[in-house]
Amino acid sequence: MASDRPPAIVLLSGGIDSATALAIAVDDGFDAYALSFDYGQRHRHELDAAHRIAAALGAVEHRTARIDLRAFGGSALTDDIAVPKGRDAGDIGEGIPITYVPARNTIFLAFALAYAEVRGASDLFIGVNALDYSGYPDCRPEFIEAFERMANLATKAGVEGTTRIRVRTPLIALTKAEIIRRGAALGVDYALTHSCYDPSDDGAACGACDSCLLRAKGFREAGIPDPTHYATVSAR
Amino acid sequence: MASDRPPAIVLLSGGIDSATALAIAVDDGFDAYALSFDYGQRHRHELDAAHRIAAALGAVEHRTARIDLRAFGGSALTDDIAVPKGRDAGDIGEGIPITYVPARNTIFLAFALAYAEVRGASDLFIGVNALDYSGYPDCRPEFIEAFERMANLATKAGVEGTTRIRVRTPLIALTKAEIIRRGAALGVDYALTHSCYDPSDDGAACGACDSCLLRAKGFREAGIPDPTHYATVSAR
Repeated sequence: MASDRPPAIVLLSGGIDSATALAIAVDDGFDAYALSFDYGQRHRHELDAAHRIAAALGAVEHRTARIDLRAFGGSALTDDIAVPKGRDAGDIGEGIPITYVPARNTIFLAFALAYAEVRGASDLFIGVNALDYSGYPDCRPEFIEAFERMANLATKAGVEGTTRIRVRTPLIALTKAEIIRRGAALGVDYALTHSCYDPSDDGAACGACDSCLLRAKGFREAGIPDPTHYATVSAR
Repeated sequence: MASDRPPAIVLLSGGIDSATALAIAVDDGFDAYALSFDYGQRHRHELDAAHRIAAALGAVEHRTARIDLRAFGGSALTDDIAVPKGRDAGDIGEGIPITYVPARNTIFLAFALAYAEVRGASDLFIGVNALDYSGYPDCRPEFIEAFERMANLATKAGVEGTTRIRVRTPLIALTKAEIIRRGAALGVDYALTHSCYDPSDDGAACGACDSCLLRAKGFREAGIPDPTHYATVSAR
């Protein structure tokens, strides 16, 4: 049975932000088509988390596109460069992070655009947020607006004037704590999400990388218990 | 030994247009880093052609990125939809072609941007041309300009103001015949290129699909002998 709800593509990494963006898309009345990427992450826990979240939040479809950014190199998340640990939270977000993947959001949104065209969707959700501003060029509002403008010149629907592509960034002005509060209010089970850049084999979080530190700070500031499963020292 | 020539990324499909764009990039004084895509083409002849062309024209590197556009469906080139045959050349280019791949040039240029960032290149060459205007939205100058603008907001170099990304489209105003004449003058061996949407197992061209018809017309109008290996009826 066809749904009356308009389709939207939701980029879903398996972390807090994209899980919250998915919950917001569903709450906004969209049929959510979740899209994840297997781009040579050093661990599969992120993709496992994406699968669990898509199911838990009622995505009507979840696709994972395999791409090999590793062919070009250039990031700690895909290369064998050490992930920084134990940094002061105030230093995180200064400069371009070591975990930067070249042109990542450009590539992810390009795939989302292809998926949108095939599913007849005009809305793309991406969970970029304020904390990313300073470090990632492709998380800034001016990048998103430029992508949207380009997307409306790239597609059949744009040329034929039948559909206007909108890139929705519901988290862009929120802090991590605000994101967590918003998602919790929408019923997101953050125990399903994965943030750690350097998890143990069973997927437990290291608690020391930039991503773990920002996540823990977010729960603390939101006043919501942190459901993260952290690795114990003896287990590592 | 490091080269004094600036690096450029050149999108290389294995067809006439991209081979000519590569020859132009080299002639313009760039070290060419050729980039091809394995996106579930129904045949490998196109990628084999790209390898031969990159070597023949002196690309300093040739990478093939694997992406699965098939995950979304939507085109004769990646789905099992019949390729149209024997159309009048005047009808080709009317409307959106059946061989349209959703968001293809957006995705290809996004990967080129990532590759450019890693190699420190600011120039991206893409062989879009006048014949593609009417059918493919993402071959038009306004799309290319919008992509370039977005790219300069997407990257570290753009944000830091150290590099300005340029998307170069040396063929955009040329007819197929003009492209062939330009490439021939630069020494491109078009026998190495592959255009056919429906080749025989040994890579011979069908001579009847839109791409074969446009190619044959181009050589005819350029007044240059067509070096294409066509399949004979008995061989098919």
